[in-house]
Amino acid sequence: MALYIIGIGLSDEKDITVKGLEIVKKADFVYLENYTSILQCPISHLEKLYGKRIILTDRDMVEKRADEILEKAKTKDVAFLVVGDPMSATTHIDLMLRAKEKDIDVRVIHNASILTAVGITGLQLYKFGKTTSIPFPENVKAETPYNVIEMNRKNNMHTLVLLDIDVEKNKFMKVDEAIRILLGIEKNKKKDMITDETSMIGCARLGSDDQFIKAGKAKDLLEVDFGKPPHCLIMPAEMHFMEEEALKEFC
Amino acid sequence: MALYIIGIGLSDEKDITVKGLEIVKKADFVYLENYTSILQCPISHLEKLYGKRIILTDRDMVEKRADEILEKAKTKDVAFLVVGDPMSATTHIDLMLRAKEKDIDVRVIHNASILTAVGITGLQLYKFGKTTSIPFPENVKAETPYNVIEMNRKNNMHTLVLLDIDVEKNKFMKVDEAIRILLGIEKNKKKDMITDETSMIGCARLGSDDQFIKAGKAKDLLEVDFGKPPHCLIMPAEMHFMEEEALKEFC
Repeated sequence: MALYIIGIGLSDEKDITVKGLEIVKKADFVYLENYTSILQCPISHLEKLYGKRIILTDRDMVEKRADEILEKAKTKDVAFLVVGDPMSATTHIDLMLRAKEKDIDVRVIHNASILTAVGITGLQLYKFGKTTSIPFPENVKAETPYNVIEMNRKNNMHTLVLLDIDVEKNKFMKVDEAIRILLGIEKNKKKDMITDETSMIGCARLGSDDQFIKAGKAKDLLEVDFGKPPHCLIMPAEMHFMEEEALKEFC
Repeated sequence: MALYIIGIGLSDEKDITVKGLEIVKKADFVYLENYTSILQCPISHLEKLYGKRIILTDRDMVEKRADEILEKAKTKDVAFLVVGDPMSATTHIDLMLRAKEKDIDVRVIHNASILTAVGITGLQLYKFGKTTSIPFPENVKAETPYNVIEMNRKNNMHTLVLLDIDVEKNKFMKVDEAIRILLGIEKNKKKDMITDETSMIGCARLGSDDQFIKAGKAKDLLEVDFGKPPHCLIMPAEMHFMEEEALKEFC
């Protein structure tokens, strides 16, 4: 018996690894963490491939009532599925810590993450600085994302900007909302860092067959319909000529 | 017909995704990029699971003779396997660009990468700055890794330091060699940034069942045998209390 924290990748049911699938097929309970990111296929597709019923978990369950999951893992094999790579969210590190406290065996099965899938834009992954995220303004009004972009840019690093999601309310921030928020912060800051003319890259559904990537000036991307979530935004630093070439070709 | 660039993850044959495996099983030719990183299982294990013969490619083949691969992809399905995530190395972006030039259909199947697998240390992935790498000193003597660590640290970002590999010569840089090189650069720089007392984290074989992670001062890690490659090194910035707790527990 053990707790298996299994990344299931970015797009659909077939993005799980062969190793992950073998564990899920044998597991006594299968949970899916359903609030830090979203899968791009219906849950029923997962259940069909796995031959297992999936128990959806929300923030409240994972953060406050993790004991239910951990108690089961003491005597049974529990698979805890996470969209992307399991170690990208604090929540899952916390779950691992709690499991270790209870002497529960934990095993992590890695998978693709949005943090590396952005490499498909042609931007060098090594040149990305700190990642930041933009919360819905009704929840938090923060200048942090602007400050992180500024700090990264000063040091010639690209910035990946993740956009807020609220699964319960079925709300997912879009590229144009994110750009408007950044332009709004600019109005206060008056540093001329993020303007209508600033080059950026909007991405939607990275890792899936219908991913959509578009590079352009802020004012142009505001007019683009990126379609279904999840979206993210990249603020590039100075680009190497090969990055520029790839960006032109891929985006 | 298409060129499928497929990440096969970090450890063994079962780290390929279900999607990746389906493509490989149907492909007419299967190449494995065998110089930017190393798999932690014998190639024969891959061939057995895939039911396919694998053609190993070295730097010369991928960088200079890519045309052979691309020509085949014009009329056949070609799977080009990459350890980790496909978009982590410039080589593969270059291959994609050349394929697009020739109007060859390219599809990328993402997978786990060392860039996110380091999250298993408990350090927040969002807090990592630019990634750097240490080349074998007989090839390049550069102060770049030291400078990147310094820049990241000034901005309170962790640094992932990748260590050089030379598959042809069967040489893989170890944690202690990397630390000695950094201490050597310190001797020239005299900035007191990397000393015997500096805290760091050595990692070996991340993503595999026998991964080994050890946090400690430079002088202590110099004495630790991290075993088989690949190794990497993490230079943490200031840590959040939860990161400290996780580090104590996991490393």
